[in-house]
Amino acid sequence: MPESDDETPVCDAGITLAFSVLGKRWNGMILSVMGSGITSFVSLRKGVSGISDTVLAERLLELTEAGLVTRSVAEGPPVTVSYELTTAGAELLPTIAQLGTWAQRNLRSAVGASN
Amino acid sequence: MPESDDETPVCDAGITLAFSVLGKRWNGMILSVMGSGITSFVSLRKGVSGISDTVLAERLLELTEAGLVTRSVAEGPPVTVSYELTTAGAELLPTIAQLGTWAQRNLRSAVGASN
Repeated sequence: MPESDDETPVCDAGITLAFSVLGKRWNGMILSVMGSGITSFVSLRKGVSGISDTVLAERLLELTEAGLVTRSVAEGPPVTVSYELTTAGAELLPTIAQLGTWAQRNLRSAVGASN
Repeated sequence: MPESDDETPVCDAGITLAFSVLGKRWNGMILSVMGSGITSFVSLRKGVSGISDTVLAERLLELTEAGLVTRSVAEGPPVTVSYELTTAGAELLPTIAQLGTWAQRNLRSAVGASN
């Protein structure tokens, strides 16, 4: 039985799940920047140009809850909070790099940037 | 010279460009569903569960302007409008499939679905 009234299938469950993370603005960029190693909130904000503190904090919480990022607190003074990819998060890096290569080849400028 | 004040780099330009498309809700799913061939607006709406007509129309226009989708009109009656991936859009499909495989292995449920 087809899943809709013609030959177009319903979107694959894994792809739907993947874009529940990556289809939210900034998440792919945050994960990509964290690929270079343990980092701080301030470094992430600089690495992900244009993101606000509030949104970055919200995204880091979601990515942590999803099991892609670990947040560590080192007792101070000063107290230091750092972020790192989990194994699951790090496994995404080669595919994110492929997306970057594809974009360099196929997209000339940011899409819908004026919206 | 480092691009920020520590070792965390600024997000790669290609990856930033890639997520200007894929970091917008629904775009990855729309491109994935179109991977099965020429399709209609109604089929796409059914294939991308939860999207509204207005948002689907907006996304298709953006994806067309970005050179990833072609819109064709066949004179009727009835007039038929169909959508198809361009070569650039189709080149993204293997990477999108990898994202799906990664998600099935690493994510248990949709992220931030309650927001």
